[in-house]
Amino acid sequence: MALYVQKFGGTSVGSVERIKAVAEKVKGFRDNGHQVVVVVSAMSGETNRLIGMANEINDEPTPREMDMLVSTGEQVTISLLAMALHKLGVPATSYTGSQVGIQTDSAHTKARIQRIETDELQADLDDGQVVVVAGFQGVDEEGNITTLGRGGSDTTGVALAAALKADECQIYTDVDGVYTTDPRVCSKAQRLERITVEEMLELASLGSKVLQIRAVEFAGKYNVPLRVLSSFQDGPGTLIVADSDQEEDSMEEPLISGIAFTANEAKLTLLNTPDVPGVASRILGPIAGANIEVDMIVQNVAPAGDYTDFTFTVAKGDYKQTLKILNEQVLPDLGEGEVKSDDNIAKVSLVGVGMRSHAGVASKMFRVLAEESINIRMVSTSEIKISVVIDEKQMELAVRALHKAFGLDKADIENEE
Amino acid sequence: MALYVQKFGGTSVGSVERIKAVAEKVKGFRDNGHQVVVVVSAMSGETNRLIGMANEINDEPTPREMDMLVSTGEQVTISLLAMALHKLGVPATSYTGSQVGIQTDSAHTKARIQRIETDELQADLDDGQVVVVAGFQGVDEEGNITTLGRGGSDTTGVALAAALKADECQIYTDVDGVYTTDPRVCSKAQRLERITVEEMLELASLGSKVLQIRAVEFAGKYNVPLRVLSSFQDGPGTLIVADSDQEEDSMEEPLISGIAFTANEAKLTLLNTPDVPGVASRILGPIAGANIEVDMIVQNVAPAGDYTDFTFTVAKGDYKQTLKILNEQVLPDLGEGEVKSDDNIAKVSLVGVGMRSHAGVASKMFRVLAEESINIRMVSTSEIKISVVIDEKQMELAVRALHKAFGLDKADIENEE
Repeated sequence: MALYVQKFGGTSVGSVERIKAVAEKVKGFRDNGHQVVVVVSAMSGETNRLIGMANEINDEPTPREMDMLVSTGEQVTISLLAMALHKLGVPATSYTGSQVGIQTDSAHTKARIQRIETDELQADLDDGQVVVVAGFQGVDEEGNITTLGRGGSDTTGVALAAALKADECQIYTDVDGVYTTDPRVCSKAQRLERITVEEMLELASLGSKVLQIRAVEFAGKYNVPLRVLSSFQDGPGTLIVADSDQEEDSMEEPLISGIAFTANEAKLTLLNTPDVPGVASRILGPIAGANIEVDMIVQNVAPAGDYTDFTFTVAKGDYKQTLKILNEQVLPDLGEGEVKSDDNIAKVSLVGVGMRSHAGVASKMFRVLAEESINIRMVSTSEIKISVVIDEKQMELAVRALHKAFGLDKADIENEE
Repeated sequence: MALYVQKFGGTSVGSVERIKAVAEKVKGFRDNGHQVVVVVSAMSGETNRLIGMANEINDEPTPREMDMLVSTGEQVTISLLAMALHKLGVPATSYTGSQVGIQTDSAHTKARIQRIETDELQADLDDGQVVVVAGFQGVDEEGNITTLGRGGSDTTGVALAAALKADECQIYTDVDGVYTTDPRVCSKAQRLERITVEEMLELASLGSKVLQIRAVEFAGKYNVPLRVLSSFQDGPGTLIVADSDQEEDSMEEPLISGIAFTANEAKLTLLNTPDVPGVASRILGPIAGANIEVDMIVQNVAPAGDYTDFTFTVAKGDYKQTLKILNEQVLPDLGEGEVKSDDNIAKVSLVGVGMRSHAGVASKMFRVLAEESINIRMVSTSEIKISVVIDEKQMELAVRALHKAFGLDKADIENEE
C-alpha cells in the first residue's frame, strides 16, 4: 500500500465529463489498495471568468478580495469531484485550503505555505476516505483566505506530499511527461523516464511549462518524489528525483537530459562603454527600475584599452522600452558608447547534470553548430547548462542537430536498448 | 447614527452593473453617517448553474458536498461587492459565513443558526468599515460549511441584525414593498406602510413571496424591525413590526391588511364516510405517507346519521397522486364512501390583525361574494385570517370586490388622507 498525492490541473477537471474521468482514475488507485489525496485546480476558464468580473468592477482590486474571489474556483471543483467519487461508491471528503489547515503568510495572491496540519487528513485516510483538497489556496493567521499565485496547485500537491510523507506526488497534466525537447520542433524528441530536480528547474525556467518552478524547488527541498503524467492517457510519465538519488548511478545517466529553446528574447549591446567599476549597474539600474527582467548578461574583458562591450538579453515584449532607456538615459549618463540591438535571435540551451563531470560538452556543442554553419552570438554557462544565442531563423536547425549529436534522438536510444 | 443590516438578493446583485448599483446605495447610507452591514446572495442564476453541474455528476449528491459547492456563489458576490465599494472609496471587508462566525447545527442544506460571534464584526464597524457578509451560509462545530436552505440570506440578515442589535434590517428585493394584494390582479392594490409579523406570516404562507417565512419568524422572535424595499427605486418600502408595537395604536389600524389568493390548489372530498373516531387519520395518513402536504381541512358535523363529508385541499401538482391514493387505498380501507374532486378552484384569504377584535368580517366577506354571485365551496378561519375556496374563474373578481369593500383600494385611502 502506498500513499499518493495526485494533482489534477484545470484542463484535467475542465468539464463535468473530465471530473468523472478523474474520479475513475482515482478509484483505480484506491481499488489497488492505495491511499489517495487528490489536489485539484479550478475548472479551466473559471479563474479567468472570475478575474474578468473583478476587473469590470475595479481595475485595482485589493489582493485580499481577489483571493476571496478566485478561491471559489477550486472549491467548486473539490465538491464536484467528491460527488463524482461518491457516485462510484468511493468514500470521499472535500476540504478547502482553510479547512485542511494549509497555513500561509498574509501575502495575498502570492502567499507562501508555512505549515500544514495533517492530523485530520491522516485520520480521514486511515478511515478509508479519499481526501479531496482545493489547490492553490490557504489561510493566514487571521483566518483570511490566501492564494499561492498561479500554478500554486502544484505547490499544494508537493507540500501535502511532504507533510504526509507520501510515497509520490503525481502531477497530472495534458502532456505525458517531460521531453528531451519540444516534439513540435524535433520529431525525434522523447519522453524522459527520470530527470533531476536541478535539470527540471533549468528546463522549466527556460520555457518547458510542464511544472511550476516553485513546486519543483519544494519537491527538491523536501525530497518528495515527483511524477509528471498525462490525465488523458496511461503511461509512466517522468519521475523527477532529488539530485542525490541521481548521482548514485550517474554512470548510467546521459550527458545531456534535454534541450530548451526560446525565440522570445532580444539582445542589446552597448559598444565601447568605459571599463570602470560600477558601469554595469549604471547600465542595468534604469532597466531594473522599469521592472524589466534581464536574462543573459555577457561582458567581454577589455582587450587592451579602457573600453568594453556589454551585452544582455530581455524578453521581446520589453525590447522597445529597453532600447529607449538605453538611448535616452544610459547613453547620456555614460557620456559615450553606442547601442546595437537585435530582436531576431533565439536562445538554445543544453541541460544535464551529466555535464558537471564531463569536460567537452561546450566544445562539442560549438562544433555541431559550426558544422551547420550556425553563428554563435553569445554564450553563457552554468554548472549544468550551456546556452547560446543564435539567429532566430536557425533555431530549429540547431535544436535538431544538437538533439541528434548528443544522442537524444528516439531511434538512437532504441538502438542502444 | 444608526446601524443597518441590508440584505440584497440574487436579482439585486445579478450582474456586475447591479453590484455597482448596490455599492452606490450602501455608500449613500454610509455618507449619511450610518454603519452598514451588507448581506448578499449569490448572483441570480449562479446557484442553479452549480446545482446543474452537481446533478450531471451525481443524482443524489451528499448534502455536505452540496453546501461546499453552492456556498461559493455568495463568496463570489461578497468579494465583488467589496471591490465595488473600494472603487467608490468606501473601506469594506468581506467575510464568508464561516469567517464571520455564523455557527449552525450540522443539518446540511437546511442548517439552523445557533449563534453569531459579533466581536470582530463590531470592531470592523467601529473602525469605519462596511462589512459584507455572505448570506445563506454558516459553519458547524466541526468546521464544515453549511447552508440555511433557499432564501436563507434573509435569515442571515435578520440574525445578524438581532445579534448586532441593529436599528433595522432592510431586505432589498425586486418589489418596492408588501402590497394589499397582487397589483397584477387588482390595479388598485397599494403598498402597505407597515404590517405586523403575524400578518406577514399569513401573507407569506399564502403565496406573497416577498420574504422567507423563517426570516419573518426570526424577526418577530428577536423583535428586529424589518423593512422590505426595492433595490431598483427609492422609497420607504414596508416596515414589518412585532405585534406588540402594532397593538399600541391598533385603533388606527385597518381591519384588513391584505388579500392573498392562489389558484394552485385542488379540492378533494370523501362523501359519506363513516363518522367514527380515527377516520380522519385513516384518510390523511396515506397521503402524508406519500409526502403530500395538505392545506385546508374541513369536516362537516354529521347532521343526523353516522356519516359525514371530509374535504381537504392539496397543491395542484399533487392532485392526481392524491386522487389515486384515495381511490386505491383509502376507499378500500374505509369500505364505503365516494370521492368527489375539483382542481378548478381558487383560495382567497383576508388577513389582518384588526379582525381579532372585530366581529363581522366573515359575514361581510360572504355578503360581498354573494353580491357578485360567487359561490363559496369551503371556508376556513384562523385568528387573523379567513380563507374561502371558490371557482377558479371567479378568483380575480372576488379579489377586486373584496379589495374595494374592505377599503383597501388606492383611491379610497387617498381620499381619506
